[in-house]
Amino acid sequence: MRTYIDCVPCFVRQALAAARLVSSDEAAHERVLRRVLDAGSRIGFEHSPPYIGRQIHRIIREETGSSDPYADIKRHSTEAALELLGATRARVETASDPFDAAVRFAIAGNVMDFALAATWDGTKIGEALDGALSKELAASDVGELEEAAGTAATILYIGDNAGEIVLDRLLLERLPEGRVKFAVRGSPVINDAVREDAEASGIGQVAEVVDTGSDAPGVILDDCSGEFSELFSLADVVIAKGQGNYESLCDCGREVFFLTQVKCDVIARDTGAPVGGWMCLCRAGHGGLSSQRAAGE
Amino acid sequence: MRTYIDCVPCFVRQALAAARLVSSDEAAHERVLRRVLDAGSRIGFEHSPPYIGRQIHRIIREETGSSDPYADIKRHSTEAALELLGATRARVETASDPFDAAVRFAIAGNVMDFALAATWDGTKIGEALDGALSKELAASDVGELEEAAGTAATILYIGDNAGEIVLDRLLLERLPEGRVKFAVRGSPVINDAVREDAEASGIGQVAEVVDTGSDAPGVILDDCSGEFSELFSLADVVIAKGQGNYESLCDCGREVFFLTQVKCDVIARDTGAPVGGWMCLCRAGHGGLSSQRAAGE
Repeated sequence: MRTYIDCVPCFVRQALAAARLVSSDEAAHERVLRRVLDAGSRIGFEHSPPYIGRQIHRIIREETGSSDPYADIKRHSTEAALELLGATRARVETASDPFDAAVRFAIAGNVMDFALAATWDGTKIGEALDGALSKELAASDVGELEEAAGTAATILYIGDNAGEIVLDRLLLERLPEGRVKFAVRGSPVINDAVREDAEASGIGQVAEVVDTGSDAPGVILDDCSGEFSELFSLADVVIAKGQGNYESLCDCGREVFFLTQVKCDVIARDTGAPVGGWMCLCRAGHGGLSSQRAAGE
Repeated sequence: MRTYIDCVPCFVRQALAAARLVSSDEAAHERVLRRVLDAGSRIGFEHSPPYIGRQIHRIIREETGSSDPYADIKRHSTEAALELLGATRARVETASDPFDAAVRFAIAGNVMDFALAATWDGTKIGEALDGALSKELAASDVGELEEAAGTAATILYIGDNAGEIVLDRLLLERLPEGRVKFAVRGSPVINDAVREDAEASGIGQVAEVVDTGSDAPGVILDDCSGEFSELFSLADVVIAKGQGNYESLCDCGREVFFLTQVKCDVIARDTGAPVGGWMCLCRAGHGGLSSQRAAGE
């Protein structure tokens, strides 16, 4: 998906909020903001939003002198999610449709996102989990996902944020054992999960952990390792979590199951789902919910 | 008042909204946005927000090829306010304190602002007028203003937006006849009133119309005509309407009565009044409501 002009003011706002979140140095905030404005004045809108997010967070890391400014936030998110894991697993196991429940809790976990929100509201994840089973999905290709996963020899599950990936375990546990590779980012960007976060989350117990080889908060295939790109193109089923993965992969040409919350007007327009909506959307090539599902297909 | 780092994302958002408001040319929107980002990356924060607003709206006029892109909006605002004038004047005349009422309706008129809001909600002015007499003022130096104006030989009243200035007439009618000069901007910027708008509003019936000689959406004294600067420094009483005039004159060194609505967090912090608050604030030199009045003076 290309970047829309509406993304630009949002990126500027996010950049300042992110700089303040990870540093108390006001001079650094100003340097970040000026560099983001300068980059924004020249950036090509043909790139997806995660391409621009990657540039912004490179600037933030450089100007704050920290290679992983969200490390504490990620640790805290992982711990908070691990505390919820047992009780949430019990709710999956007792649900009338455990696979559907696992998909829903995985989407609920996508609320643990610091790209758009600058502060963490601990009540949000609890609320999202509590409402997950009764939430009406804006796209519900859960049956298709279960069927495709059941017969797949290889499944690539692309994670999103630290903390969120703990809840992804509940869905990983419902996928065929030994066939799933779970991908994290190649190096830190925002609060997206990297190998260290996957390890702290116990992902290795249910899937083989791989990484994209890239520091984009999404999957920019040109920027990924050859190993990851091969996995991506050869996997029988690809599951991608979160808006950044959606933005960067929705036009990739191959079928992907996107599990995400819709967090802004631009994505709402692109998918046809409302802001705040939850999607389990099977998408091949271009064409959002608006074209594929709103027509009643 | 200097520009704060928080003003920058707001300016970017405003620039895009303004470009869209005055032009349907998407290529022009992008050119505006890129130039504003570029200018923002280099701008000095020691300037007041109206200095930056002036730069942005010069860019918008250049890129849209219109010397007064808000002309239609201003005409519509003036007509809407003129329709409300008679009934509002009757409410001033029957009020227990007509001077206080006139001040309140003048502040109510400050809602007719397109700097921060990109769309016009016609119900807002009616609501503001209806609530004016009972609204609690965050700063209420109305008695001081009435007393100072009563003995002044010369009063300079600096207007803000088209439409709003129609309601300023109600206060102008309560000031000593023949002693008031009413200042508008020297040339078009946003929906700020210029001479043409003052004429359409009938200001000439109650005051002598002058202009700042500048296209800033505020009063940047270095940018004003010598004639205006002299008026400003020699007037016995200066009344300044709106946030742009506050931002550019709050540190000017001389006493000014600011009549404005508080429209953003930055001004709320600077003045100590809440966002949405209304002020009739007498201020000399530096020191906002927070220092002068919140202390109970």
